[in-house]
Amino acid sequence: MRELFVIGIGAGDPDQVTVQAIKAMNKADVFFVIGKGDEKQDLVDLRTGILEEHVAGPYRVVDIVDPPRDRTPSDYEGVVDDWHERRAALFEAEFASEPGVGAILVWGDPSLYDSTLRIVERVLARGNVSFDYSVIPGVTSVQSLAAQHRIVLNRIGEPVHVTTGRRLAEGLPDGVDNAVVMLDAHCTFTQVPGDDVQIWWGAYLGTPDEVLISGRLRDVEDEIQRVRAELRERKGWIMDTYLLRR
Amino acid sequence: MRELFVIGIGAGDPDQVTVQAIKAMNKADVFFVIGKGDEKQDLVDLRTGILEEHVAGPYRVVDIVDPPRDRTPSDYEGVVDDWHERRAALFEAEFASEPGVGAILVWGDPSLYDSTLRIVERVLARGNVSFDYSVIPGVTSVQSLAAQHRIVLNRIGEPVHVTTGRRLAEGLPDGVDNAVVMLDAHCTFTQVPGDDVQIWWGAYLGTPDEVLISGRLRDVEDEIQRVRAELRERKGWIMDTYLLRR
Repeated sequence: MRELFVIGIGAGDPDQVTVQAIKAMNKADVFFVIGKGDEKQDLVDLRTGILEEHVAGPYRVVDIVDPPRDRTPSDYEGVVDDWHERRAALFEAEFASEPGVGAILVWGDPSLYDSTLRIVERVLARGNVSFDYSVIPGVTSVQSLAAQHRIVLNRIGEPVHVTTGRRLAEGLPDGVDNAVVMLDAHCTFTQVPGDDVQIWWGAYLGTPDEVLISGRLRDVEDEIQRVRAELRERKGWIMDTYLLRR
Repeated sequence: MRELFVIGIGAGDPDQVTVQAIKAMNKADVFFVIGKGDEKQDLVDLRTGILEEHVAGPYRVVDIVDPPRDRTPSDYEGVVDDWHERRAALFEAEFASEPGVGAILVWGDPSLYDSTLRIVERVLARGNVSFDYSVIPGVTSVQSLAAQHRIVLNRIGEPVHVTTGRRLAEGLPDGVDNAVVMLDAHCTFTQVPGDDVQIWWGAYLGTPDEVLISGRLRDVEDEIQRVRAELRERKGWIMDTYLLRR
Protein backbone atom coordinates (compact mmCIF):
# COMPACT_ATOMS: atom_id res chain seq x y z
CA MET A 1 0.00 0.00 0.00
CA ARG A 2 1.36 3.39 -1.08
CA GLU A 3 -0.54 5.67 1.26
CA LEU A 4 -3.23 5.49 3.93
CA PHE A 5 -5.77 8.11 5.01
CA VAL A 6 -7.39 7.83 8.43
CA ILE A 7 -10.49 9.96 7.96
CA GLY A 8 -12.86 11.34 10.59
CA ILE A 9 -16.36 11.35 9.07
CA GLY A 10 -18.44 12.99 11.78
CA ALA A 11 -21.11 11.57 14.03
CA GLY A 12 -23.42 10.03 11.42
CA ASP A 13 -24.91 12.74 9.21
CA PRO A 14 -23.40 12.45 5.68
CA ASP A 15 -23.47 16.27 5.56
CA GLN A 16 -21.17 16.39 8.60
CA VAL A 17 -18.25 15.23 6.43
CA THR A 18 -15.64 17.90 5.60
CA VAL A 19 -14.43 18.87 2.13
CA GLN A 20 -10.98 17.63 3.15
CA ALA A 21 -12.46 14.22 4.02
CA ILE A 22 -14.32 14.06 0.69
CA LYS A 23 -11.12 14.87 -1.22
CA ALA A 24 -9.22 12.17 0.66
CA MET A 25 -12.02 9.63 0.11
CA ASN A 26 -11.84 10.33 -3.62
CA LYS A 27 -8.10 9.56 -3.67
CA ALA A 28 -8.64 6.13 -2.13
CA ASP A 29 -8.71 2.93 -4.13
CA VAL A 30 -9.88 0.83 -1.23
CA PHE A 31 -11.78 1.42 2.02
CA PHE A 32 -11.00 -0.86 4.91
CA VAL A 33 -14.19 -1.31 6.90
CA ILE A 34 -14.16 -2.84 10.34
CA GLY A 35 -17.24 -4.99 10.76
CA LYS A 36 -18.64 -5.27 14.25
CA GLY A 37 -21.20 -7.99 13.68
CA ASP A 38 -24.86 -7.98 12.72
CA GLU A 39 -26.11 -5.76 15.50
CA LYS A 40 -24.28 -2.76 14.07
CA GLN A 41 -25.31 -3.25 10.45
CA ASP A 42 -26.97 0.18 10.77
CA LEU A 43 -23.52 1.75 11.15
CA VAL A 44 -22.16 -0.14 8.16
CA ASP A 45 -25.16 1.12 6.17
CA LEU A 46 -24.57 4.72 7.32
CA ARG A 47 -20.93 4.48 6.26
CA THR A 48 -21.90 2.97 2.89
CA GLY A 49 -24.32 5.87 2.43
CA ILE A 50 -21.52 8.37 3.06
CA LEU A 51 -19.34 6.69 0.42
CA GLU A 52 -22.17 6.57 -2.11
CA GLU A 53 -22.97 10.24 -1.55
CA HIS A 54 -19.44 11.61 -1.67
CA VAL A 55 -17.22 9.30 -3.72
CA ALA A 56 -17.42 9.62 -7.51
CA GLY A 57 -15.00 7.05 -8.85
CA PRO A 58 -14.90 3.29 -8.53
CA TYR A 59 -13.64 1.96 -5.22
CA ARG A 60 -13.39 -1.29 -3.37
CA VAL A 61 -14.49 -2.04 0.16
CA VAL A 62 -12.58 -4.61 2.17
CA ASP A 63 -14.34 -5.84 5.28
CA ILE A 64 -12.15 -6.72 8.20
CA VAL A 65 -14.07 -8.64 10.82
CA ASP A 66 -13.11 -7.63 14.35
CA PRO A 67 -11.55 -10.36 16.46
CA PRO A 68 -13.75 -11.24 19.46
CA ARG A 69 -13.21 -9.18 22.61
CA ASP A 70 -13.98 -9.72 26.28
CA ARG A 71 -16.30 -6.82 27.14
CA THR A 72 -16.19 -7.29 30.92
CA PRO A 73 -12.56 -8.12 31.70
CA SER A 74 -10.92 -7.70 35.09
CA ASP A 75 -7.66 -6.56 33.40
CA TYR A 76 -9.27 -3.95 31.10
CA GLU A 77 -6.15 -2.38 29.61
CA GLY A 78 -4.37 -5.72 29.10
CA VAL A 79 -7.32 -7.22 27.27
CA VAL A 80 -7.74 -4.14 25.04
CA ASP A 81 -4.02 -4.26 24.26
CA ASP A 82 -4.15 -7.90 23.21
CA TRP A 83 -7.24 -7.21 21.08
CA HIS A 84 -5.43 -4.36 19.29
CA GLU A 85 -2.51 -6.67 18.45
CA ARG A 86 -4.83 -9.23 16.90
CA ARG A 87 -6.56 -6.44 14.97
CA ALA A 88 -3.15 -5.15 13.75
CA ALA A 89 -2.28 -8.56 12.34
CA LEU A 90 -5.54 -8.61 10.37
CA PHE A 91 -4.91 -5.11 8.99
CA GLU A 92 -1.31 -5.93 8.12
CA ALA A 93 -2.43 -8.81 5.93
CA GLU A 94 -4.87 -6.58 4.05
CA PHE A 95 -2.42 -3.67 3.69
CA ALA A 96 0.26 -6.03 2.34
CA SER A 97 -1.94 -7.09 -0.57
CA GLU A 98 -3.04 -3.56 -1.55
CA PRO A 99 -0.96 -1.74 -4.23
CA GLY A 100 -2.80 1.63 -4.18
CA VAL A 101 -4.17 4.19 -1.73
CA GLY A 102 -6.14 2.99 1.28
CA ALA A 103 -8.54 4.74 3.62
CA ILE A 104 -10.13 3.97 6.96
CA LEU A 105 -13.25 5.90 7.89
CA VAL A 106 -13.62 6.68 11.58
CA TRP A 107 -16.87 7.84 13.23
CA GLY A 108 -16.34 11.23 14.82
CA ASP A 109 -12.63 12.00 14.94
CA PRO A 110 -9.63 9.64 15.08
CA SER A 111 -8.20 11.53 18.09
CA LEU A 112 -10.86 10.65 20.66
CA TYR A 113 -11.52 7.16 22.08
CA ASP A 114 -10.71 5.52 18.78
CA SER A 115 -8.17 2.76 18.26
CA THR A 116 -7.45 3.16 14.54
CA LEU A 117 -4.25 5.23 14.90
CA ARG A 118 -2.92 2.79 17.48
CA ILE A 119 -3.59 -0.11 15.09
CA VAL A 120 -1.83 1.72 12.24
CA GLU A 121 1.19 2.41 14.43
CA ARG A 122 1.24 -1.22 15.57
CA VAL A 123 1.13 -2.42 11.98
CA LEU A 124 4.09 -0.15 11.13
CA ALA A 125 5.97 -1.19 14.27
CA ARG A 126 5.70 -4.85 13.28
CA GLY A 127 7.98 -3.87 10.37
CA ASN A 128 6.44 -6.14 7.73
CA VAL A 129 4.81 -3.37 5.66
CA SER A 130 5.53 0.36 5.23
CA PHE A 131 3.45 3.27 3.89
CA ASP A 132 2.80 6.97 4.41
CA TYR A 133 -0.27 7.91 6.35
CA SER A 134 -2.13 11.07 7.30
CA VAL A 135 -5.08 11.93 9.49
CA ILE A 136 -8.12 13.97 8.43
CA PRO A 137 -9.93 15.44 11.45
CA GLY A 138 -13.70 15.13 11.80
CA VAL A 139 -16.58 16.49 13.85
CA THR A 140 -17.03 14.42 17.02
CA SER A 141 -20.26 13.33 18.69
CA VAL A 142 -19.28 15.79 21.43
CA GLN A 143 -19.62 18.72 19.04
CA SER A 144 -22.82 17.21 17.62
CA LEU A 145 -24.28 16.90 21.11
CA ALA A 146 -23.47 20.53 21.89
CA ALA A 147 -24.76 21.77 18.53
CA GLN A 148 -28.08 19.93 18.79
CA HIS A 149 -28.63 21.20 22.34
CA ARG A 150 -27.26 24.62 21.25
CA ILE A 151 -24.97 24.77 24.26
CA VAL A 152 -21.38 25.72 25.00
CA LEU A 153 -19.55 22.88 26.76
CA ASN A 154 -17.71 25.21 29.14
CA ARG A 155 -18.99 28.06 31.26
CA ILE A 156 -16.81 31.17 30.84
CA GLY A 157 -13.17 30.27 31.46
CA GLU A 158 -13.96 26.81 32.88
CA PRO A 159 -12.32 23.52 31.85
CA VAL A 160 -14.17 20.70 30.07
CA HIS A 161 -13.37 17.18 31.18
CA VAL A 162 -13.93 14.44 28.58
CA THR A 163 -14.15 11.03 30.18
CA THR A 164 -15.65 7.54 30.00
CA GLY A 165 -18.47 5.88 31.91
CA ARG A 166 -15.88 3.62 33.53
CA ARG A 167 -13.91 6.62 34.86
CA LEU A 168 -17.02 8.52 35.88
CA ALA A 169 -17.89 5.59 38.16
CA GLU A 170 -14.69 6.37 40.10
CA GLY A 171 -15.86 9.98 40.62
CA LEU A 172 -14.90 13.22 38.88
CA PRO A 173 -11.65 14.99 39.85
CA ASP A 174 -12.00 17.94 42.22
CA GLY A 175 -12.55 21.19 40.36
CA VAL A 176 -14.26 19.54 37.36
CA ASP A 177 -17.70 21.09 36.85
CA ASN A 178 -18.23 20.25 33.15
CA ALA A 179 -17.83 16.60 32.16
CA VAL A 180 -18.55 15.05 28.78
CA VAL A 181 -19.07 11.31 29.16
CA MET A 182 -18.55 8.83 26.32
CA LEU A 183 -18.66 5.03 26.12
CA ASP A 184 -21.04 4.70 29.05
CA ALA A 185 -23.00 1.47 28.69
CA HIS A 186 -24.29 1.54 32.26
CA CYS A 187 -26.01 4.93 32.78
CA THR A 188 -23.28 5.89 35.24
CA PHE A 189 -24.84 9.37 35.53
CA THR A 190 -27.24 7.84 38.06
CA GLN A 191 -24.25 7.41 40.40
CA VAL A 192 -23.26 11.10 40.25
CA PRO A 193 -24.33 12.70 43.53
CA GLY A 194 -25.93 16.09 44.03
CA ASP A 195 -29.17 17.97 43.39
CA ASP A 196 -27.47 20.74 41.40
CA VAL A 197 -26.28 18.74 38.38
CA GLN A 198 -27.62 19.38 34.86
CA ILE A 199 -27.45 16.85 32.03
CA TRP A 200 -27.60 17.20 28.24
CA TRP A 201 -27.94 13.71 26.72
CA GLY A 202 -28.07 12.60 23.09
CA ALA A 203 -28.24 9.26 21.25
CA TYR A 204 -27.68 8.39 17.57
CA LEU A 205 -26.47 11.98 17.09
CA GLY A 206 -26.53 13.16 13.50
CA THR A 207 -28.73 10.28 12.32
CA PRO A 208 -32.49 10.20 11.61
CA ASP A 209 -32.94 8.32 14.91
CA GLU A 210 -31.39 11.09 17.02
CA VAL A 211 -32.91 11.56 20.49
CA LEU A 212 -32.14 14.44 22.86
CA ILE A 213 -33.04 14.81 26.55
CA SER A 214 -31.86 17.55 28.91
CA GLY A 215 -32.70 18.91 32.33
CA ARG A 216 -31.83 18.65 36.00
CA LEU A 217 -30.12 15.25 36.36
CA ARG A 218 -32.32 14.12 39.27
CA ASP A 219 -35.45 15.08 37.28
CA VAL A 220 -34.58 13.32 34.00
CA GLU A 221 -32.25 10.43 34.93
CA ASP A 222 -35.09 7.89 35.08
CA GLU A 223 -36.47 9.05 31.73
CA ILE A 224 -33.03 8.77 30.08
CA GLN A 225 -32.56 5.25 31.48
CA ARG A 226 -35.99 4.18 30.24
CA VAL A 227 -35.64 5.77 26.78
CA ARG A 228 -32.09 4.42 26.40
CA ALA A 229 -33.18 0.87 27.25
CA GLU A 230 -36.15 1.05 24.83
CA LEU A 231 -34.01 2.39 21.97
CA ARG A 232 -31.28 -0.15 22.56
CA GLU A 233 -33.84 -2.96 22.59
CA ARG A 234 -35.55 -1.73 19.43
CA LYS A 235 -32.41 -1.14 17.32
CA GLY A 236 -30.07 -3.71 18.91
CA TRP A 237 -27.38 -1.11 19.63
CA ILE A 238 -27.00 2.44 20.91
CA MET A 239 -24.37 5.17 20.74
CA ASP A 240 -24.89 8.01 23.17
CA THR A 241 -22.98 10.73 24.97
CA TYR A 242 -23.78 13.44 27.48
CA LEU A 243 -22.60 16.56 29.26
CA LEU A 244 -22.88 16.83 33.03
CA ARG A 245 -22.58 20.27 34.66
CA ARG A 246 -22.47 21.10 38.33
CA MET B 1 -34.28 38.39 10.89
CA ARG B 2 -36.08 35.14 10.07
CA GLU B 3 -33.40 32.63 10.96
CA LEU B 4 -29.80 32.53 12.18
CA PHE B 5 -27.13 29.88 11.63
CA VAL B 6 -24.14 29.73 13.98
CA ILE B 7 -21.65 27.79 11.89
CA GLY B 8 -18.40 26.14 12.98
CA ILE B 9 -15.95 26.46 10.08
CA GLY B 10 -12.93 24.52 11.34
CA ALA B 11 -9.50 25.71 12.34
CA GLY B 12 -8.55 27.67 9.23
CA ASP B 13 -8.26 25.33 6.23
CA PRO B 14 -11.17 26.06 3.82
CA ASP B 15 -11.29 22.31 3.15
CA GLN B 16 -12.01 21.69 6.83
CA VAL B 17 -15.55 23.04 6.37
CA THR B 18 -18.34 20.43 6.43
CA VAL B 19 -20.99 19.91 3.75
CA GLN B 20 -23.58 20.89 6.36
CA ALA B 21 -21.76 24.19 6.93
CA ILE B 22 -21.56 24.87 3.19
CA LYS B 23 -25.31 24.22 2.80
CA ALA B 24 -26.09 26.58 5.69
CA MET B 25 -23.75 29.26 4.31
CA ASN B 26 -25.56 29.08 0.99
CA LYS B 27 -28.93 29.73 2.71
CA ALA B 28 -27.65 32.91 4.31
CA ASP B 29 -28.37 36.37 2.96
CA VAL B 30 -25.96 38.08 5.31
CA PHE B 31 -22.86 37.10 7.27
CA PHE B 32 -22.21 38.95 10.49
CA VAL B 33 -18.46 39.20 10.91
CA ILE B 34 -16.92 40.24 14.20
CA GLY B 35 -13.91 42.41 13.50
CA LYS B 36 -11.10 42.26 16.01
CA GLY B 37 -8.97 45.13 14.72
CA ASP B 38 -6.14 45.37 12.23
CA GLU B 39 -3.85 42.87 13.86
CA LYS B 40 -6.19 39.99 13.00
CA GLN B 41 -6.85 41.01 9.40
CA ASP B 42 -5.35 37.63 8.46
CA LEU B 43 -8.30 35.90 10.12
CA VAL B 44 -10.79 38.14 8.33
CA ASP B 45 -9.02 37.26 5.06
CA LEU B 46 -9.16 33.53 5.84
CA ARG B 47 -12.88 33.81 6.53
CA THR B 48 -13.44 35.78 3.34
CA GLY B 49 -11.56 33.06 1.45
CA ILE B 50 -13.88 30.41 2.90
CA LEU B 51 -16.95 32.36 1.77
CA GLU B 52 -15.52 32.93 -1.72
CA GLU B 53 -14.69 29.26 -2.07
CA HIS B 54 -17.94 27.79 -0.82
CA VAL B 55 -20.78 30.29 -1.34
CA ALA B 56 -22.26 30.50 -4.82
CA GLY B 57 -24.94 33.16 -4.61
CA PRO B 58 -24.77 36.83 -3.74
CA TYR B 59 -24.39 37.64 -0.06
CA ARG B 60 -23.70 40.60 2.15
CA VAL B 61 -21.13 40.88 4.91
CA VAL B 62 -21.88 43.09 7.89
CA ASP B 63 -18.88 43.93 10.04
CA ILE B 64 -19.54 44.32 13.72
CA VAL B 65 -16.60 45.92 15.46
CA ASP B 66 -15.94 44.41 18.87
CA PRO B 67 -16.32 46.77 21.80
CA PRO B 68 -13.00 47.31 23.61
CA ARG B 69 -12.16 44.84 26.37
CA ASP B 70 -9.83 44.91 29.34
CA ARG B 71 -7.46 41.99 28.71
CA THR B 72 -5.89 41.95 32.18
CA PRO B 73 -8.78 42.56 34.57
CA SER B 74 -8.79 41.64 38.24
CA ASP B 75 -12.49 40.63 38.01
CA TYR B 76 -12.13 38.39 34.93
CA GLU B 77 -15.64 36.94 34.76
CA GLY B 78 -17.35 40.24 35.54
CA VAL B 79 -15.47 42.08 32.81
CA VAL B 80 -16.17 39.34 30.25
CA ASP B 81 -19.84 39.43 31.21
CA ASP B 82 -20.07 43.18 30.70
CA TRP B 83 -18.26 42.89 27.38
CA HIS B 84 -20.75 40.24 26.19
CA GLU B 85 -23.67 42.53 27.05
CA ARG B 86 -22.19 45.36 24.99
CA ARG B 87 -21.58 42.92 22.14
CA ALA B 88 -25.19 41.70 22.39
CA ALA B 89 -26.50 45.25 21.99
CA LEU B 90 -24.45 45.68 18.81
CA PHE B 91 -25.73 42.38 17.37
CA GLU B 92 -29.33 43.18 18.32
CA ALA B 93 -29.20 46.38 16.29
CA GLU B 94 -27.91 44.52 13.22
CA PHE B 95 -30.35 41.60 13.60
CA ALA B 96 -33.27 44.03 13.91
CA SER B 97 -32.55 45.55 10.51
CA GLU B 98 -32.12 42.23 8.67
CA PRO B 99 -35.22 40.73 6.95
CA GLY B 100 -33.63 37.46 5.71
CA VAL B 101 -31.42 34.64 6.93
CA GLY B 102 -28.27 35.48 8.87
CA ALA B 103 -25.15 33.50 9.65
CA ILE B 104 -22.23 33.86 12.00
CA LEU B 105 -19.08 31.90 11.19
CA VAL B 106 -17.13 30.63 14.18
CA TRP B 107 -13.55 29.38 14.05
CA GLY B 108 -13.42 25.78 15.20
CA ASP B 109 -16.70 24.86 16.85
CA PRO B 110 -19.25 27.08 18.64
CA SER B 111 -19.26 24.76 21.67
CA LEU B 112 -15.71 25.35 22.89
CA TYR B 113 -14.39 28.63 24.34
CA ASP B 114 -16.52 30.70 22.01
CA SER B 115 -18.94 33.41 23.07
CA THR B 116 -21.26 33.50 20.03
CA LEU B 117 -24.01 31.29 21.48
CA ARG B 118 -24.00 33.32 24.68
CA ILE B 119 -24.36 36.52 22.67
CA VAL B 120 -27.26 35.05 20.67
CA GLU B 121 -29.01 33.96 23.86
CA ARG B 122 -28.45 37.39 25.38
CA VAL B 123 -29.89 39.08 22.33
CA LEU B 124 -32.99 36.85 22.57
CA ALA B 125 -33.25 37.37 26.34
CA ARG B 126 -33.35 41.14 25.84
CA GLY B 127 -36.71 40.51 24.14
CA ASN B 128 -36.41 43.15 21.44
CA VAL B 129 -35.97 40.76 18.50
CA SER B 130 -36.91 37.12 17.91
CA PHE B 131 -35.74 34.51 15.42
CA ASP B 132 -35.05 30.78 15.05
CA TYR B 133 -31.45 29.69 15.29
CA SER B 134 -29.47 26.51 14.86
CA VAL B 135 -25.88 25.45 15.37
CA ILE B 136 -23.70 23.67 12.81
CA PRO B 137 -20.79 21.86 14.47
CA GLY B 138 -17.24 22.24 13.15
CA VAL B 139 -13.81 20.70 13.52
CA THR B 140 -11.93 22.33 16.40
CA SER B 141 -8.25 23.29 16.61
CA VAL B 142 -7.99 20.43 19.13
CA GLN B 143 -8.84 17.87 16.45
CA SER B 144 -6.56 19.67 13.99
CA LEU B 145 -3.71 19.55 16.47
CA ALA B 146 -4.19 15.82 17.02
CA ALA B 147 -4.57 15.10 13.28
CA GLN B 148 -1.42 16.98 12.31
CA HIS B 149 0.60 15.26 15.03
CA ARG B 150 -1.23 11.96 14.20
CA ILE B 151 -1.94 11.33 17.86
CA VAL B 152 -4.86 10.17 19.97
CA LEU B 153 -5.64 12.68 22.74
CA ASN B 154 -6.29 9.97 25.33
CA ARG B 155 -4.31 6.91 26.24
CA ILE B 156 -6.55 3.82 26.39
CA GLY B 157 -9.49 4.49 28.70
CA GLU B 158 -8.05 7.75 30.08
CA PRO B 159 -9.87 11.11 30.35
CA VAL B 160 -8.91 14.20 28.35
CA HIS B 161 -9.02 17.51 30.19
CA VAL B 162 -9.57 20.60 28.02
CA THR B 163 -8.58 23.76 29.82
CA THR B 164 -7.17 27.28 29.48
CA GLY B 165 -3.75 28.76 30.17
CA ARG B 166 -5.30 30.66 33.06
CA ARG B 167 -6.55 27.46 34.70
CA LEU B 168 -3.38 25.54 33.95
CA ALA B 169 -1.49 28.15 35.99
CA GLU B 170 -3.54 27.00 39.01
CA GLY B 171 -2.36 23.40 38.44
CA LEU B 172 -4.10 20.41 36.89
CA PRO B 173 -6.64 18.41 38.92
CA ASP B 174 -5.37 15.16 40.46
CA GLY B 175 -5.82 12.24 38.11
CA VAL B 176 -5.55 14.34 34.93
CA ASP B 177 -2.75 12.98 32.73
CA ASN B 178 -3.88 14.34 29.34
CA ALA B 179 -4.57 18.09 29.16
CA VAL B 180 -5.38 20.12 26.06
CA VAL B 181 -4.62 23.79 26.70
CA MET B 182 -6.25 26.62 24.76
CA LEU B 183 -6.14 30.42 25.08
CA ASP B 184 -2.70 30.42 26.64
CA ALA B 185 -0.97 33.73 25.91
CA HIS B 186 1.75 33.19 28.50
CA CYS B 187 3.41 29.83 27.71
CA THR B 188 2.02 28.43 30.95
CA PHE B 189 3.44 25.01 30.03
CA THR B 190 6.77 26.26 31.44
CA GLN B 191 5.13 26.25 34.90
CA VAL B 192 4.07 22.59 34.68
CA PRO B 193 6.43 20.57 36.90
CA GLY B 194 7.97 17.20 36.14
CA ASP B 195 10.52 15.55 33.89
CA ASP B 196 8.05 13.03 32.49
CA VAL B 197 5.69 15.39 30.62
CA GLN B 198 5.32 15.28 26.82
CA ILE B 199 3.97 18.18 24.75
CA TRP B 200 2.44 18.37 21.27
CA TRP B 201 2.17 22.03 20.26
CA GLY B 202 0.71 23.65 17.14
CA ALA B 203 0.16 27.21 15.90
CA TYR B 204 -1.93 28.57 13.00
CA LEU B 205 -3.36 25.05 12.63
CA GLY B 206 -4.92 24.38 9.26
CA THR B 207 -3.39 27.47 7.64
CA PRO B 208 -0.33 27.77 5.36
CA ASP B 209 1.60 29.18 8.36
CA GLU B 210 1.05 26.09 10.52
CA VAL B 211 3.93 25.19 12.84
CA LEU B 212 4.20 21.99 14.90
CA ILE B 213 6.63 21.12 17.69
CA SER B 214 6.54 18.07 19.93
CA GLY B 215 8.75 16.27 22.40
CA ARG B 216 9.61 16.00 26.06
CA LEU B 217 8.37 19.25 27.62
CA ARG B 218 11.67 20.03 29.38
CA ASP B 219 13.54 19.48 26.08
CA VAL B 220 11.35 21.64 23.82
CA GLU B 221 9.78 24.29 26.07
CA ASP B 222 12.47 26.87 25.29
CA GLU B 223 12.18 26.24 21.56
CA ILE B 224 8.38 26.63 21.67
CA GLN B 225 8.69 29.90 23.61
CA ARG B 226 11.24 31.27 21.14
CA VAL B 227 9.34 30.16 18.01
CA ARG B 228 6.05 31.42 19.43
CA ALA B 229 7.52 34.86 20.19
CA GLU B 230 9.09 35.11 16.72
CA LEU B 231 5.87 34.11 14.94
CA ARG B 232 3.76 36.45 17.03
CA GLU B 233 6.16 39.31 16.30
CA ARG B 234 6.24 38.59 12.59
CA LYS B 235 2.47 38.18 12.04
CA GLY B 236 1.19 40.45 14.81
CA TRP B 237 -0.99 37.67 16.29
CA ILE B 238 -0.89 33.98 17.10
CA MET B 239 -3.38 31.21 17.74
CA ASP B 240 -1.92 28.07 19.28
CA THR B 241 -2.94 25.07 21.33
CA TYR B 242 -1.20 22.07 22.82
CA LEU B 243 -1.59 18.69 24.48
CA LEU B 244 0.34 17.90 27.66
CA ARG B 245 0.67 14.28 28.77
CA ARG B 246 2.19 12.93 31.95
